[in-house]
Amino acid sequence: MKVIKVALLGFGTVGQGVYELLMKNGYIFEKKLGIQIDIKKILVRDVKKKREVKVPPELFTTNFEEILRDEEIAIVCELMGGLEPAKSYILKSLFQGKQVVTANKAVLAESGAEIFEMARSKGAFLGFEASVGGGIPVIKTLNEALIGNQIERITGIINGTTNYILTRMLEQNISFEKALDEAKAKGYAEADPSLDLKGLDSAHKISILGSLAFGIYIPFDKVYIEGIENIDLMDLKFAQSFGYVIKLIAEVKRDRDKIEIRVHPALIPEDHILTSVRLNYNAIFIRGDFVGDILLYGLGAGKEPTASAVVSDIISATEYLLSKKSPLIPYPSKKEDFKIKPIKECIFKYYFRFSALDRPGVLSKISGILGKYGISIASVVQIGRQKKRGAVPIVMLTHEAKEERVERALAEIDTLEVLKAKTKRLRIIE
Amino acid sequence: MKVIKVALLGFGTVGQGVYELLMKNGYIFEKKLGIQIDIKKILVRDVKKKREVKVPPELFTTNFEEILRDEEIAIVCELMGGLEPAKSYILKSLFQGKQVVTANKAVLAESGAEIFEMARSKGAFLGFEASVGGGIPVIKTLNEALIGNQIERITGIINGTTNYILTRMLEQNISFEKALDEAKAKGYAEADPSLDLKGLDSAHKISILGSLAFGIYIPFDKVYIEGIENIDLMDLKFAQSFGYVIKLIAEVKRDRDKIEIRVHPALIPEDHILTSVRLNYNAIFIRGDFVGDILLYGLGAGKEPTASAVVSDIISATEYLLSKKSPLIPYPSKKEDFKIKPIKECIFKYYFRFSALDRPGVLSKISGILGKYGISIASVVQIGRQKKRGAVPIVMLTHEAKEERVERALAEIDTLEVLKAKTKRLRIIE
Repeated sequence: MKVIKVALLGFGTVGQGVYELLMKNGYIFEKKLGIQIDIKKILVRDVKKKREVKVPPELFTTNFEEILRDEEIAIVCELMGGLEPAKSYILKSLFQGKQVVTANKAVLAESGAEIFEMARSKGAFLGFEASVGGGIPVIKTLNEALIGNQIERITGIINGTTNYILTRMLEQNISFEKALDEAKAKGYAEADPSLDLKGLDSAHKISILGSLAFGIYIPFDKVYIEGIENIDLMDLKFAQSFGYVIKLIAEVKRDRDKIEIRVHPALIPEDHILTSVRLNYNAIFIRGDFVGDILLYGLGAGKEPTASAVVSDIISATEYLLSKKSPLIPYPSKKEDFKIKPIKECIFKYYFRFSALDRPGVLSKISGILGKYGISIASVVQIGRQKKRGAVPIVMLTHEAKEERVERALAEIDTLEVLKAKTKRLRIIE
Repeated sequence: MKVIKVALLGFGTVGQGVYELLMKNGYIFEKKLGIQIDIKKILVRDVKKKREVKVPPELFTTNFEEILRDEEIAIVCELMGGLEPAKSYILKSLFQGKQVVTANKAVLAESGAEIFEMARSKGAFLGFEASVGGGIPVIKTLNEALIGNQIERITGIINGTTNYILTRMLEQNISFEKALDEAKAKGYAEADPSLDLKGLDSAHKISILGSLAFGIYIPFDKVYIEGIENIDLMDLKFAQSFGYVIKLIAEVKRDRDKIEIRVHPALIPEDHILTSVRLNYNAIFIRGDFVGDILLYGLGAGKEPTASAVVSDIISATEYLLSKKSPLIPYPSKKEDFKIKPIKECIFKYYFRFSALDRPGVLSKISGILGKYGISIASVVQIGRQKKRGAVPIVMLTHEAKEERVERALAEIDTLEVLKAKTKRLRIIE
């Protein structure tokens, strides 16, 4: 029986999940693989803190150097999250010749260039399956299963909090605020949910997926980002009446020599399988030139699913340890010469919701301006005058148009006196 | 640049797809991995046959021994299908110390015990990602990504032909025969589609998935099988009215020390993501104790998706070749002592469609017999008398009941004089 010694950095939700998995299912590795995965040290801030999981107290340490210097420890799992000291610990562990597993999307999306370079130069295995999509094996799929494909497009619902909120709003006819409160109560949203709601969490993840798909490290700051804070129940309902569901979409695709990488809410046709992804589930849709369309679906966060991914990386790391070989498949590399397609150059069909006074000629004025910018209307719904005076919604779906023209047209429309609020503009992805 | 020499056995649809993929995307491996995948020989029956793909004629051979004896050929891809000579060729190639990749579900489901044992004893890599679900990475997911999980259940739609037929019948209101003709015209059904329609193809595949999930080789003849030949449009419509979609389901799960493994049509609740799997798409739903529920979706057959899977296995084989190590994850092994749960002991909710004369007391007779066998009714629909005299459908959904009791109850009910045809019985999976 080979014994593999592992250290955990951090013992929050994910760390405890990994510990519990190894306690409950560690026998699988012993029986199936003839190896024993042994947690030798756990780095924590406070050794004495009360914890739900019962752990022999001698495993805890507050000193990272102790782990780093311990030659028996072959695999370091960074499960602390955040940028520092996570980044330094990952770099130092790799430098020391250890294999590293991390669940930290932020550190890869923001400092991946350095981390991947260190892993490459040391010939180390760096596992990060848990950084995107929880237990969904999207990293392995992109890196290994689809290796013979040119990836054309990745379209994901990769944030459970926002997907939960959008699902509940539509299905329960409730406001954004009410759905958010519910998500908090269920533990699907954090006390400060802004990273999720603003799309930053999704942007971290799509930066990682895009980097794998195209082999070029695409840092987080290249991602165009819009969140869901401005989605009204009314928009979800209008979209539904046109046969669409609004989801927070993270997408990356290649357009000849340019990469388009974005996070924003979008209307998805209701017969697309992504619209079946409800509540806190995640899904990643990948199009490859040979594999066609595939979708991977599951819980994108949470203690147990994330632990499942971390442990699968620990086993991969073990396989490289035992073979004393470096991974064949390279890490994304830093290239300065690739181009990001600016959002202004991107082309979409659009959903517009105008808030206009119900007066003769309004529709003609709006459509006149759209026409001037070459934007053609596919369908329109104008809701009749309401009892109290004031603005009424006019909803339009357009044919394909360049974002820049749309921005200019809407800026002009919004100066019309009959328009009573800034026009809502959402993209349609088909 | 390392050059890896590969032989293809068979040059039908899949073989040609693999060849085309390597021609088009082979540069990916050169650029990314520094290796060149080189097809050295292709085994065919007729060297002179006209083929769509242009291949240098010197690659073709009709002599398997030539490939076997060629020490340069490190990887053999068996893409012929069928039992023999595929089985002998796989065994001989493994014995000779070559790595083997196969897309052949039948040979693994029927002779896997021998083949897996040979791979194990030679420490060889045997890749079979393409044997189930075309380009969907379900083998890699079960074997590697979910290795830390106890698999509780796999529920799949793993035959494109039958899924296409059931989808078109329901969505286009057409008969089984008409949908089958359409599937043939589109190339989704073979000239003799009986392997697909009778559920045998799905049974081959679930035998492989079950073997991986539980680490015990479950041969094909242990799978309980029903096909879709008896599904009427009427049943699809009734199921829909109750909020269900009928799919051909392949399922394997563990019930303490027994394994339940079956292929049959089943009613799935319409809010389950499996019901979004339309036309010739496949999907595999897996429940693990840590990962929770995940779903993998994509094209389960076809030249390009299958080639994508074969090539990913060729790269895995290459990685083992270069490391000179055997795979850490073992092949399913033959065990005599595991128990299959007989279908009679399985418990389901059921859908019944009785064809009964519209006479007073019929419903009471039927429900009386069901009650006698302890089967309780959850809902019932009786369609009013039709213009012409004759049988009317009575549709019932039941609560959970043991299959054996259901069989006995239906046998008794079908002897009633007022029953005009054998009762339709479908299982419900939730």
